Amino acid sequence: MTEQHSKHAVVLLSGGLDSATALAIARAEGFLCHTLSFDYGQRHRGELECARAVATIGGAVDSNLVTIDLSVRAGFGGSALTDEIDVPKDRLKGKDDKGIPVTYVPARNTIFLSMALGYAEIIGAFDIFIGVNAVDYSGYPDCRPEFIKAFEKLANVATAAGVGGKDSFRIHAPLIKLSKAQIIRKGLELGVEYSLTRSCYDPTPDGFSCGRCDACILRLRGFEEAGAKDPVPYVR
Amino acid sequence: MTEQHSKHAVVLLSGGLDSATALAIARAEGFLCHTLSFDYGQRHRGELECARAVATIGGAVDSNLVTIDLSVRAGFGGSALTDEIDVPKDRLKGKDDKGIPVTYVPARNTIFLSMALGYAEIIGAFDIFIGVNAVDYSGYPDCRPEFIKAFEKLANVATAAGVGGKDSFRIHAPLIKLSKAQIIRKGLELGVEYSLTRSCYDPTPDGFSCGRCDACILRLRGFEEAGAKDPVPYVR
Repeated sequence: MTEQHSKHAVVLLSGGLDSATALAIARAEGFLCHTLSFDYGQRHRGELECARAVATIGGAVDSNLVTIDLSVRAGFGGSALTDEIDVPKDRLKGKDDKGIPVTYVPARNTIFLSMALGYAEIIGAFDIFIGVNAVDYSGYPDCRPEFIKAFEKLANVATAAGVGGKDSFRIHAPLIKLSKAQIIRKGLELGVEYSLTRSCYDPTPDGFSCGRCDACILRLRGFEEAGAKDPVPYVR
Repeated sequence: MTEQHSKHAVVLLSGGLDSATALAIARAEGFLCHTLSFDYGQRHRGELECARAVATIGGAVDSNLVTIDLSVRAGFGGSALTDEIDVPKDRLKGKDDKGIPVTYVPARNTIFLSMALGYAEIIGAFDIFIGVNAVDYSGYPDCRPEFIKAFEKLANVATAAGVGGKDSFRIHAPLIKLSKAQIIRKGLELGVEYSLTRSCYDPTPDGFSCGRCDACILRLRGFEEAGAKDPVPYVR
């Protein structure tokens, strides 16, 4: 499974713009990609349909969904992305807010990467792709290079494959130092179908993006700076 | 929540002997304990009932169950503990086998600790207890001090609470250097009700332990060395 001509990789896929671009980069680097998405009771459920479509059109070998039922909201509560807390609007307009926003989900990327690690070990893969981004990242601690580095180190002491000595795990975060505009330019070069992706934290029931949450503002600004038009529908 | 007189801790609880002892130690150290158990499709489902009983009798503030539904077995497949692979019997009798056995579940403790970390952050706790043991540990890479240390480091870069500077996460593995006999002696001193715990990888449907899998052999040997009688029922 780990021979050069058939490298397998696990790609975390949310249905958003960044992870769709990360998938395209993994494919361009020659990996056979197995995507992993999570149903953790997020409010914007449409992203799971987006993730499936992105995996299919993006050329993944297979796409997988893990459901986490949190009777007590353990691990994922306490965030505007899962609870009845209002998603902040217009927060990023005109200023750079570097605080940690209420849309932060405790330990989310740690949990996602842990699951990806277990899955990678099962299929014999040593490469994991995650579309985190430290530039336009809205202040999440688990989107920083220090976090990726610490997880990679953990992966190689935590697993039979990691301590086995044949190969070691690599956590790829190819977008981590790119601006949103650079991510979009890269994705357009690689033919990413951005019409299938959604970024909005608070879409309407029929799938229109709000245009005002942090994620929408960063996305719209990114397309503008990349000199391209965002193909997804907005409320206004 | 983090004042000295009311320290909260998250305690991972499996229903087995080790984690029941870890809970008793956390309680003895003055922590208000919130237990976290996982339903991940394990074959020996009775352990979840044991975990609940241990939490109640062991004086936990609350006990929580997280269900992980793995449509593709992602993260937890490829192990005799979840799949239709035979649990090895009589493997440990008369020799110390240090290889990684088929009962190893890929990245299990990484996933469990990640969930515990998210939960701890939500309730404002900085202390997490896990009953791993590196002495009699059956060869699991994620039961070693290197793993615990790497996870603790990760926790403090992965979370808003960890980077916030007010306190830092501590992963407690109080059993890590103890033999099974030492764990049992410690637990008996602290009044652990071992009759509520189960360790067997392959119990009968009515809850009798097999007496022959790695876990049973280590447990029986531990009680013998501790000069105590194991109160749970065995097939023979």
